[in-house]
Amino acid sequence: MDLHILDHRLRVTSIAKKGLVDFTHPLIKLIFLRNRTRCKFFSLTETPENYTVVLDEEGFKELQPSEHLQVESSIWLPLNVVSNGNTSCSSQAVGVTKIAKSVIAPLAEQHVSVFMLSTYQTDFILVKEKDLSVVISTLEEEFNIFKEEGGESVPVHSQEVSNGLQKNGKEDIHPTVHPVLIPLNHFCVMSLDPDTLPAIATTLIDVLFYSSSHKDEGQSSSSESLDCIKFFSFSLIDGYISLVMDTEAQRRFPADLLFTSSSGELWRMVRIGGQPLGFDECGIVAQISQPLADSDISAYYISTFSFDHVLVPEEDIVSVTEMLRHQRKEAAAEF
Amino acid sequence: MDLHILDHRLRVTSIAKKGLVDFTHPLIKLIFLRNRTRCKFFSLTETPENYTVVLDEEGFKELQPSEHLQVESSIWLPLNVVSNGNTSCSSQAVGVTKIAKSVIAPLAEQHVSVFMLSTYQTDFILVKEKDLSVVISTLEEEFNIFKEEGGESVPVHSQEVSNGLQKNGKEDIHPTVHPVLIPLNHFCVMSLDPDTLPAIATTLIDVLFYSSSHKDEGQSSSSESLDCIKFFSFSLIDGYISLVMDTEAQRRFPADLLFTSSSGELWRMVRIGGQPLGFDECGIVAQISQPLADSDISAYYISTFSFDHVLVPEEDIVSVTEMLRHQRKEAAAEF
Repeated sequence: MDLHILDHRLRVTSIAKKGLVDFTHPLIKLIFLRNRTRCKFFSLTETPENYTVVLDEEGFKELQPSEHLQVESSIWLPLNVVSNGNTSCSSQAVGVTKIAKSVIAPLAEQHVSVFMLSTYQTDFILVKEKDLSVVISTLEEEFNIFKEEGGESVPVHSQEVSNGLQKNGKEDIHPTVHPVLIPLNHFCVMSLDPDTLPAIATTLIDVLFYSSSHKDEGQSSSSESLDCIKFFSFSLIDGYISLVMDTEAQRRFPADLLFTSSSGELWRMVRIGGQPLGFDECGIVAQISQPLADSDISAYYISTFSFDHVLVPEEDIVSVTEMLRHQRKEAAAEF
Repeated sequence: MDLHILDHRLRVTSIAKKGLVDFTHPLIKLIFLRNRTRCKFFSLTETPENYTVVLDEEGFKELQPSEHLQVESSIWLPLNVVSNGNTSCSSQAVGVTKIAKSVIAPLAEQHVSVFMLSTYQTDFILVKEKDLSVVISTLEEEFNIFKEEGGESVPVHSQEVSNGLQKNGKEDIHPTVHPVLIPLNHFCVMSLDPDTLPAIATTLIDVLFYSSSHKDEGQSSSSESLDCIKFFSFSLIDGYISLVMDTEAQRRFPADLLFTSSSGELWRMVRIGGQPLGFDECGIVAQISQPLADSDISAYYISTFSFDHVLVPEEDIVSVTEMLRHQRKEAAAEF
């Protein structure tokens, strides 16, 4: 299999709910006016806490500094696994499950923290630029690694294995088991022909910028009693659109424009983290994607500024819940 | 003929060009999300100087105070002439020309300042609430006057004629003749089915919020050497949409959604005012609409925060220019 290091240098940012008004102008430009911006990688995810915006440096220029904007200090690079025909993998599962053992687990072992962004089309694995040499040396056994540069794919090989491994050295640690929240909404993962984006513009603007009542703000995010969660994700990456929304939001869109996989399945969410997770901890994705891979359960994985979110098929939510309970018990028993 | 005092209490405001970013959120709500606002009267006009926003009190609540927002202190009431079938008027002209002699001239004589807002559908004559009694006593000879209140049209009669006339007393003054600018653009006055507004949303957003280059800002507004003028007007009033734009902007919209009168004529602009006109001077509209009425030339009239704008049929621009030159000479001779 091939692993591509994509030609985007990304920033991970967060806009406070009450600051969204100040960022409506640049965000609408980034979402709807492709001709006016050179941004090629844009993702916006609303959660109860804030709006996570992941975007390349061209897009980042559009965001003015503000007390409502938090910017993670690293440059992140997106990796993408391309299974070029000869898949040795017998799994039917899609999403992060497919790359759990080949990418996620080895990186976690090397203490590389990852920021995941699953979309309708693919799964982006974001790693910090400073970790790139470790990433290459860790994954080059399993993958042909290419770096995309100006439209060309250039093979890369590790040149500083020892240096890389020294930086992130392998230790046997017990990863933290974070509390999880399982909201009751059902989610869809969908796409849209970019040419028809104007046709849903007013609905999308309404959902993204005008649907948060002020009551939603504040403490509700950390409340475990939350029944349904506010979660909406839009991404426009290299010309491909991906949307993740719950069925309530979906009903507001014209039925004939958004499309999903032929199975049309619905997804349930597991939100990971009682407290904001930060950007340095390793193994969070591995901890949940490994058992999903063992059970061959498909999963989309969307990291945000504060928490991680896993979407699993609704028929699997019971077994996933059971699996997580078991994992917690084991972790508790070890201490 | 009937004169209706419409059931809207209006504010006249101006947003600085560089402040538009801060007002994108409320303006997009007012333009596109009718279900989220109780605003029934909204007009936005871009000129080289600023954005003039005229809106009712419900809409005004959406605008947060800002150093970039100027608000005229008065409450303005819109009047509307309804020619109920039995038109005694033989004129074929449309727009402000039709009401020049019956409304504009008498109000100017009574020193009532007016703010004009012509749309595709009709011509709104905005008067200050404090002048209402003078307006009624001045116009009730010519019109049956109705006040619209909660969907009902209630006949009104002047009860304080003397008081009203005392306030604004009739004096014989020489009105100021303001310099005019005649830009080279050709304009269209158009409408749109409100149900198809979402279909032009991204184009309209692009034109309104992203088409001013920073180079446009600043001094260019007062320069007489300006060849073409930046002028774009959108209004959504009681469910009716009106758009005024030049042919360059028009080409950016899908040709099949915007419609104009069957004659499809183009209009040229006369901008009135070398210096901002303010809101107290009377007779500015009368000064130009009277001779247009004498020559039976149609005209749309759009006041903005700084200047007034008259649109006349392109085939009449030469005679209008000649007429204005004559008017200036006469004014000069009188002093």
